[in-house]
Amino acid sequence: MSNKTTAIANSNIAFIKYWGNFDARLRMPLNDSLSMNLDALVTETTVEFDDALKSDEIVVGGEPADEKTKTRVVEHLNRIRAEAKIEACARVHSRNNFPSATGLASSASAFAALTLAGARAAGLELSERALSILARQGSGSAARSIPAGFTEWLAATNVTSTSEQSYARQLMPPDAWDLKDVIAIVSRDAKKVGSSEGHAAANTSPFLGERLARLPIRYHRVRRELLNKNLQGMGADIEAEAIELHTLAMTSRPPIFYWTPATVRVMDAVRQWREEGLEAYFTLDAGPNVHVLVEAKDSDEIAARLRTFADVQEVIVSGAGEGTRLSEEHLF
Amino acid sequence: MSNKTTAIANSNIAFIKYWGNFDARLRMPLNDSLSMNLDALVTETTVEFDDALKSDEIVVGGEPADEKTKTRVVEHLNRIRAEAKIEACARVHSRNNFPSATGLASSASAFAALTLAGARAAGLELSERALSILARQGSGSAARSIPAGFTEWLAATNVTSTSEQSYARQLMPPDAWDLKDVIAIVSRDAKKVGSSEGHAAANTSPFLGERLARLPIRYHRVRRELLNKNLQGMGADIEAEAIELHTLAMTSRPPIFYWTPATVRVMDAVRQWREEGLEAYFTLDAGPNVHVLVEAKDSDEIAARLRTFADVQEVIVSGAGEGTRLSEEHLF
Repeated sequence: MSNKTTAIANSNIAFIKYWGNFDARLRMPLNDSLSMNLDALVTETTVEFDDALKSDEIVVGGEPADEKTKTRVVEHLNRIRAEAKIEACARVHSRNNFPSATGLASSASAFAALTLAGARAAGLELSERALSILARQGSGSAARSIPAGFTEWLAATNVTSTSEQSYARQLMPPDAWDLKDVIAIVSRDAKKVGSSEGHAAANTSPFLGERLARLPIRYHRVRRELLNKNLQGMGADIEAEAIELHTLAMTSRPPIFYWTPATVRVMDAVRQWREEGLEAYFTLDAGPNVHVLVEAKDSDEIAARLRTFADVQEVIVSGAGEGTRLSEEHLF
Repeated sequence: MSNKTTAIANSNIAFIKYWGNFDARLRMPLNDSLSMNLDALVTETTVEFDDALKSDEIVVGGEPADEKTKTRVVEHLNRIRAEAKIEACARVHSRNNFPSATGLASSASAFAALTLAGARAAGLELSERALSILARQGSGSAARSIPAGFTEWLAATNVTSTSEQSYARQLMPPDAWDLKDVIAIVSRDAKKVGSSEGHAAANTSPFLGERLARLPIRYHRVRRELLNKNLQGMGADIEAEAIELHTLAMTSRPPIFYWTPATVRVMDAVRQWREEGLEAYFTLDAGPNVHVLVEAKDSDEIAARLRTFADVQEVIVSGAGEGTRLSEEHLF
């Protein structure tokens, strides 16, 4: 049997953030979230199930995966095997085109690509929605990398909600709006506290309840301005949302701090540039790197300015990306 | 008549912070707070009422005060004149022994010294409690600099509370505990957003209500450990309290950001040093400078380490300070 399958997926950056689960095992989130896929940040993954294998073989960036990664990938392969009713072990090779372990949501693109490649290799023909649901269980934000362009991930937080009701869907295709994410990489170090631990700690912040009570108002305002392609209209909310996620982390017990000195320097600079008339707004994932959102006409200027910072190690300019798709070029 | 009077007051650093007023005009705070006076940070102020003067003459650090400072000092002189039933204008000369306008609570020591010197010069003999109430109306945290040593400021937030019920009192004298505040001055720039504006913005943070609901538990825990002279027992709460104040500021509308890159660098270092076994805990006022609290035996080591930071401009080591007192050495 030849089931070797390769998929490509983009990472994504959230405008309304995912922080905390009401069901951690199934990664069913506490709130709806909104994001855009990032065409510059790509994971390619090839999967092949092979009855001759004694155990799953997981290679990331040419190296055998570390134990933590391997465990998480094997768990995801188990979900796929259960759905496909197969038992064969798999050979999984994956690589990112961007610096790994820097808190750039590499797990979003990684689990999106693994989901499509793994499902197809296992003989499953899943809808976009079903792929999103499956990807979500590997890494929450991976759900949003399945559809193309600008997407929203529905939380489905009613007590009667099932896993099948929490999935991402497209809001706008990638070519609907030439928005750019100019990413200032200020640290290549792996995060001290992973996102999964952060999600688990969310409910130890005294402020989580208030956030969840107020978030729907912000969510619908940002969603509307996104559909209006009005960066200025959504900018202040996007920054406030990023700050809010980090203040929740900082007020958890024990507290989680993701900002480096350079993070603060870049956030300050973006506010300053805006006072000078450049319409740029920052956001951050659960990590130190700063994403600066601008209209395409301003992206060269912002990237050039960010490159002058001694503590910005790399600047990546990304447009809105495609959804997770198949590729003919296998990694092995 | 010769009423020339000089008073000396110390600044203070809060363990439980003052953030927001329920009566801004009277500076009646939303919550109780706890602090220690800082013996290294001193304001000296000489006041003389003179019928020959046509207007109040306010000199700070040898220079005529700026308009904003002058207005605030004149308003405070008006409170003193009203209480003393006099009308003469005043000559006020004041100086700090520490870098001014760096967010080191210079208004606490300044208004405490002005209150005692002004009240005495106006012929008033006020109790410590009455001085604290009067100082509070000039600058909230000045109330805490009136009694000596470690003090607590009672909010008095019942709807029936009067201004006379919100005052500071001593918890422990300065020699009860040889605690040191090792202050890393990371910026000498005047704050972009003053504390008064910050207090006014407090209720625009979605998280203020939750803070106020939970603060009494933290307050009583820190107060108990303070009386036990147990730095380790109160350290985690002190850091969480500082972070909480700053997260409230950052989630205000519009948001207020006080941290510089160096602020983040020093906070990270303190956490790291603690992992290495040094019992040090940071706190911050509504500004970028970092106060590192340690037992006296560790203060030289911490100061030496902080002095190695290129972006730490000055390190000041302070013990617990006296209350506001009279001096024979006039400034004019």
